[in-house]
Amino acid sequence: MKLVMAVVQDKDSNRLMNALVDHNFRTTKLATTGGFLKAGNTTFMIGTEDHRVDKLLSVIKENCQSRDQMVAPVSPMGGNADSYVPYPVEVEVGGATIFVLPIEQFHHF
Amino acid sequence: MKLVMAVVQDKDSNRLMNALVDHNFRTTKLATTGGFLKAGNTTFMIGTEDHRVDKLLSVIKENCQSRDQMVAPVSPMGGNADSYVPYPVEVEVGGATIFVLPIEQFHHF
Amino acid sequence: MKLVMAVVQDKDSNRLMNALVDHNFRTTKLATTGGFLKAGNTTFMIGTEDHRVDKLLSVIKENCQSRDQMVAPVSPMGGNADSYVPYPVEVEVGGATIFVLPIEQFHHF
Ligand code: NI
Ligand code: NI
Ligand code: NI
Repeated sequence: MKLVMAVVQDKDSNRLMNALVDHNFRTTKLATTGGFLKAGNTTFMIGTEDHRVDKLLSVIKENCQSRDQMVAPVSPMGGNADSYVPYPVEVEVGGATIFVLPIEQFHHF
Repeated sequence: MKLVMAVVQDKDSNRLMNALVDHNFRTTKLATTGGFLKAGNTTFMIGTEDHRVDKLLSVIKENCQSRDQMVAPVSPMGGNADSYVPYPVEVEVGGATIFVLPIEQFHHF
Repeated sequence: MKLVMAVVQDKDSNRLMNALVDHNFRTTKLATTGGFLKAGNTTFMIGTEDHRVDKLLSVIKENCQSRDQMVAPVSPMGGNADSYVPYPVEVEVGGATIFVLPIEQFHHF
């Protein structure tokens, strides 16, 4: 067994949770703030057998990989028109930071 | 020293916290949601000396073991009387998922 | 790489977060309650390379070490004047409980 801690962006959190359930990974979510990733984030704590670690990593990668996204321009509220960008811009979203921890004992009562 | 992560149901959480204090285990609670167990849950993070791990596991088991509980029938609100069960039913409550982690260093400043 | 879990008092939490950012440690904060320390606390989860663990420990110590603090007397509300202490008293604040965990794999997608 391994204990996997995965910090992902809030916006990918529901999608990842569904994918983990689909693939029979048992997980619990920790409320977390700031840090590894710029936006709000969630930490998944997932217990898994050794031979399923690679599958788990691929599920996380599929659902949380950092990628560029086009963001529609927001029209400026109350001035500051100098910084207004009248066309969509690309921003990086997503990403995951993952720690795979060894465990000495696992119990389920 | 070991670091023990124990995910338990919210309904067992206060009782377990009191038992841990009674037995001199030092613990901190993480706010967690969903996952390993069906209902709301809490994760306890407990630091303990190696020779007390078995004691800790028995304290958790005593206070959180999954068990059947009789639940009184709830009278149906606004119809759907077909699914109304007019006698108490047995549901499974409790349970704990526990990871015992090795640690390389422990410090207290 | 190591995964360091550090439980500190809420009152030291912002200062520590700033110091961690200043020293280029990547961290995420877990919402935690009660336990290792008497007052409200926060758990930092910090991923770091092996050779920077000592530096990380010294940053945490600098910002969270338990220390005595003078607290101004609070005038008693509605009686109980017997227990009123008309001069500042020293109380212990701060402190940190730290676990350094080995990791088997680290990934960043
Ligand atoms: Ni798949
Ligand atoms: Ni006992
Ligand atoms: Ni410094």
